[in-house]
Amino acid sequence: MAVTRDPHSPAAAFDLARWSGEWLARIEAALSTWVVADAPAGLGDAMRYAVLNGGKRLRPLLVLAAREAVQGREDAALRAACAVELIHAYSLVHDDMPCMDDDVLRRGKPTVHVKFGEAQALLAGDALQALAFELLAPEDPSIPAVVQAGLCRLLARAAGYAGMAGGQAIDLASVGRSLDETQLREMHRRKTGSLLESSVLMGAACGTTDAKTWAALADYGAALGLAFQVVDDILDVTADSATLGKTAGKDAAQDKPTSVSVLGLERSRRFARELLAQALSALDRTGLPDTRALRALATMVVNREN
Amino acid sequence: MAVTRDPHSPAAAFDLARWSGEWLARIEAALSTWVVADAPAGLGDAMRYAVLNGGKRLRPLLVLAAREAVQGREDAALRAACAVELIHAYSLVHDDMPCMDDDVLRRGKPTVHVKFGEAQALLAGDALQALAFELLAPEDPSIPAVVQAGLCRLLARAAGYAGMAGGQAIDLASVGRSLDETQLREMHRRKTGSLLESSVLMGAACGTTDAKTWAALADYGAALGLAFQVVDDILDVTADSATLGKTAGKDAAQDKPTSVSVLGLERSRRFARELLAQALSALDRTGLPDTRALRALATMVVNREN
Repeated sequence: MAVTRDPHSPAAAFDLARWSGEWLARIEAALSTWVVADAPAGLGDAMRYAVLNGGKRLRPLLVLAAREAVQGREDAALRAACAVELIHAYSLVHDDMPCMDDDVLRRGKPTVHVKFGEAQALLAGDALQALAFELLAPEDPSIPAVVQAGLCRLLARAAGYAGMAGGQAIDLASVGRSLDETQLREMHRRKTGSLLESSVLMGAACGTTDAKTWAALADYGAALGLAFQVVDDILDVTADSATLGKTAGKDAAQDKPTSVSVLGLERSRRFARELLAQALSALDRTGLPDTRALRALATMVVNREN
Repeated sequence: MAVTRDPHSPAAAFDLARWSGEWLARIEAALSTWVVADAPAGLGDAMRYAVLNGGKRLRPLLVLAAREAVQGREDAALRAACAVELIHAYSLVHDDMPCMDDDVLRRGKPTVHVKFGEAQALLAGDALQALAFELLAPEDPSIPAVVQAGLCRLLARAAGYAGMAGGQAIDLASVGRSLDETQLREMHRRKTGSLLESSVLMGAACGTTDAKTWAALADYGAALGLAFQVVDDILDVTADSATLGKTAGKDAAQDKPTSVSVLGLERSRRFARELLAQALSALDRTGLPDTRALRALATMVVNREN
């Protein structure tokens, strides 16, 4: 953790790489413990392959940064961090399947259905979603039931019809059609935004119920979630596949509406910067003394190159 | 509800048809309310089609019968009853897909992927699983958080790698191979047994934490869960498709190991009767005054013709 006496010092004084590095080690260890290999008939191998594959772990880091900002419980937050990553991982497994995006590579490796077969990929995704909720509701009585139930509520809503799954349905229906700016934003808010925003709120749920703090963190999460998708769309046309770690230019090839196809490149870039400013200004409204990790993560999301 | 002064009177004095009829009306109404049609881009239609299709609702009835036995909260139990049915419904949607069992008919109607396409079926199943947990963790503060979290824990374990999804992985791996009696029982315990047993325990979780009662109800649920599968395997070879409402003789055609292929028909029938006796004797050990609905459901499961 970077040492600084003034929690209001600029984000530059906060060592994000060091902070992330320390937490990433704990996240990877926890995921490796909780995604067990002894699930029957190869299911555990497929689940581990889907999760322990070197993702950036942005969602877990958001949970942990929000937890730090509200000085909440670390034990519940580490569970929430892993749970949200399991939901993200399962969505990628199902999304890559032939009936969806039909992708054969992810992060340079064969996708789960290529490696383990479609049926096992389907089951592994299903089992990862169930495991996410299992992590949030452990027998451990030291994590208050009200925190456990609150985390389940946030994750279920973010993953379901009103969130991620609903956004994917809009995405499916939108291929080859033109969306206006409002429709596009609605799709992004659900498809990627809801899980990112909920990551922030799940971290908050580990330590506060203050309505003003929640509202401000929700604004931060919503702006960051949308910014993430806008930047994703920009990188899809500006970066090469090697830098991205996935196929560049895929959206245009699949005739999917994106920020760039709707707004153009320059307006998309300006929009991303505006969203970053909104996210940072929301943090000022939280009333929390130390939001440096959240600040640094939002800045990284907008300035990233992959 | 049948009126009787003596709760220990034989199951015959309990009017299961009437009891079920009253609860089924409430279950169907609750499912229709909670599985919303306004999920975007046709997702809601696919979800409703998957759920509101005239299933027997055995799992919800088990939740509600166990709730009645422990005199637990009705509000939480109705949510649990619907949640467990959503998990069952999603598993059928995914199980019917071409990469799994490749079934085109269920209960005489086109399966979800036939009607809505494979991608929408995949998403509808995923969204139904999330919705199950959403139902269990409502904002409603009148349902204690400890009950909400306990229900999430039971359902997540029953649905995941240690339960239903794990059993399906064993099932996948077992096609065309011979299993011994122990392996077959292990597959059935996970694949269908875990969700049936958890239905009983979720009902219990709405009203008691007494360890002796839980252990006895778990024994009841385990015996009933296994009996259900054994009877399913018997009906697959003895009933015709019209009575079953699904394709008879499918297990043999797919070369799947079943109770009948491993034990033979007569030993399977005897085994089902033994399991019923075990289930009823477990109810005697619960120490609960009125277990008539649970008794009648177990008897129905073993004596059913479809």
